[in-house]
Amino acid sequence: MSTHSEQSAVTVLGLGPMGRALAGAFLDAGLPTTVWNRTPGKDRELIERGAVGARSAEEAIAASELTVVCVVDYDASDAILRRDGVTDALKGHTVVNLTADTPDRARDTSDWAAGHGIRYLDGAIMTPTTTIGTPAAVFIHSGPAKLYEEHRPVLDTLGGTHTHLGEEIGRAAAYDIALLDIFWTAMAGYAHALAVARAEGVSARELAPFAKGIGAILPPLFEETAEEVDRGTFSGEGNPITSAVSSMSHIVHTSEGHGIDAGVMRAAEGMARRAIGLGHGTDGFIRVAELLGRSGS
Amino acid sequence: MSTHSEQSAVTVLGLGPMGRALAGAFLDAGLPTTVWNRTPGKDRELIERGAVGARSAEEAIAASELTVVCVVDYDASDAILRRDGVTDALKGHTVVNLTADTPDRARDTSDWAAGHGIRYLDGAIMTPTTTIGTPAAVFIHSGPAKLYEEHRPVLDTLGGTHTHLGEEIGRAAAYDIALLDIFWTAMAGYAHALAVARAEGVSARELAPFAKGIGAILPPLFEETAEEVDRGTFSGEGNPITSAVSSMSHIVHTSEGHGIDAGVMRAAEGMARRAIGLGHGTDGFIRVAELLGRSGS
Repeated sequence: MSTHSEQSAVTVLGLGPMGRALAGAFLDAGLPTTVWNRTPGKDRELIERGAVGARSAEEAIAASELTVVCVVDYDASDAILRRDGVTDALKGHTVVNLTADTPDRARDTSDWAAGHGIRYLDGAIMTPTTTIGTPAAVFIHSGPAKLYEEHRPVLDTLGGTHTHLGEEIGRAAAYDIALLDIFWTAMAGYAHALAVARAEGVSARELAPFAKGIGAILPPLFEETAEEVDRGTFSGEGNPITSAVSSMSHIVHTSEGHGIDAGVMRAAEGMARRAIGLGHGTDGFIRVAELLGRSGS
Repeated sequence: MSTHSEQSAVTVLGLGPMGRALAGAFLDAGLPTTVWNRTPGKDRELIERGAVGARSAEEAIAASELTVVCVVDYDASDAILRRDGVTDALKGHTVVNLTADTPDRARDTSDWAAGHGIRYLDGAIMTPTTTIGTPAAVFIHSGPAKLYEEHRPVLDTLGGTHTHLGEEIGRAAAYDIALLDIFWTAMAGYAHALAVARAEGVSARELAPFAKGIGAILPPLFEETAEEVDRGTFSGEGNPITSAVSSMSHIVHTSEGHGIDAGVMRAAEGMARRAIGLGHGTDGFIRVAELLGRSGS
C-alpha cells in the first residue's frame, strides 16, 4: 500500500507542449512532480519550478505511484513503456495514458498492462495546452471506475472538467476520435470556404463574422440531430437531403470553376447522393449517419 | 415613377416553404402582397391571410414595383423569368432574387436583367424558414447600393439582419457558397462522427454534449484563423499540421476498421499531407486554405 504522500506524488513522461503543461499544473498544485522526456533538455524550466528531472523512465516511474503519459501517439508510448526495465518498474503502479490514438490501441495497451500487473487508465485531453490548469480544460477518461476515483484528486489538479466515460478502456479514445472527426472536418470546410471566398474576391476577414454565425448554429443543431439519430427518425421537413445536394453541387461547381480542389465536398456530396439513391431523398441530411454506420454491420 | 403605395406593394414568386415564409412576413407587416407559384395550390393559406393570388407570373409582377423571387435554383428562376411575357412585365420593375445558386448564375441573370431594362438585386437567406419575420433571420444582398436602399424598407419587414455586401452582383452568392461550404462540411463531419461513435458503442445522445463543446470552440477559432489567412501567417505553434494529420489518420483507421467509408476525412487528410509535402509541416492547418487557393491562380 502506498502512503498518502506517495499517492499524491506524480510522474509525467513526455515533455512536449502538452506534457509540460500537465507537469506545470501539478507543480502549481504543490504535488511532488518527477518528469522525464526521451530526448533531453525539455525538463529545464520544470526543474526550475521545482520538478525532479529523472535520468531514466525507470527512475521517473519509481518516484511516484501514478505515472501520467502524454506523447505523440501509442507508437511513442509503447516505445517508452514496453521495455523490460520500464515494465518491471511499472508493476503495481498506475499509468494514466493521456496520449491520443485509436480505441484499439488503448485496448491493446490495457491488455498488455493487465498482463504485467500494471494498473491502467486511458484518457484524452479535448482542449489546447493553454487551458491546462484552468476551468476551460476538458478531460475524458475510461477504465476501472475504482482506479479512476482513487486518482481523481491528482487528476483534478489539472483543472477543468473531468468525465469518466465508462469502464471499457477504449471509450475515451472513441469519444476523442469522434470529436476530432467533427473538429478537423469542420476546419477542412472552413479552409476550403476561405479559398473559394478569396477566389471570389471576398477576404477571410470579410467572411469571418458570417462564418462565426454559421459556427454558432452548429451546437444546437448537433443536439437536435443526435436525438433524431438515436430515435431513428430523420425528418427532412424544411431541409431535405435533396436541398443539401443542390447546395453541395453549387459549392463544387464554384470551387472547381476557380481551379480549387473540391475533394472534401465531393465526398460529402457522394454520401448525400447515395442516401437519395437508397430512397431517402425526403429525409434530413443526418440520415447519412445511419447509412454510413450500416455499411459496417 | 411609382407612388409610395405602389412601392410598398410586393410580389412573391415561388411558394415553397421559404417563399411562403417570406410572403407571410410581408402580410404580417401589412404590405399589399401578391403571390404566385408555378404549380397551383400553394397560395391558399396566404390568400386566407390577405394575399392576392395571381393567375400568372405576368399578372403577379404587374401588381407591384418589387418582385421577390425564391425558388429552388436559377434553373427554376430562369424558367419563370426568362419568358417573353414575363420579361416584358418586368421592364422598369425591380427583382430581388433570393434564390440560392452560384455567383456566376447571379452575374448571368444580372446581365440578362440589364439587357431588358429590369432593375436587379441578388440576395441569399442564411437562416431557416422559421426565422423569417423574427430578429434571428439573416439576409445578405448585393447589387446597386441605391436600388438596395430604395427597397430596404420593404426588405426590412422580413425581420432580422440585412447586410448589403457590395455592388458586385455575385457577392451575396459568393458569401452564401462559402458559408454553405462550412455548414455542409461540418454536418458531413458530424454525421460521420456519429457513425464511428456508434460502431464504438457510443450513442449520439452520449456524444452530443461533447460535440456541442467542439462546436462552441469553432466560432472564435474561425475568427483567429481568418486573421492569419489575411496576414499570410500560419502559426502552427501548439498545433502544427503534422499533429493534425496524426489525428486524421487515427480517424480514417478507426472508421475503415469498422467498415465505415472515410472519404471525407481521406480528402481532408490529403489536403494536409500535401501541405506538409510542400514544406509547411510546422505551420497551422489553415495553411491549406492558401495552398488550395493558389491552385486556382
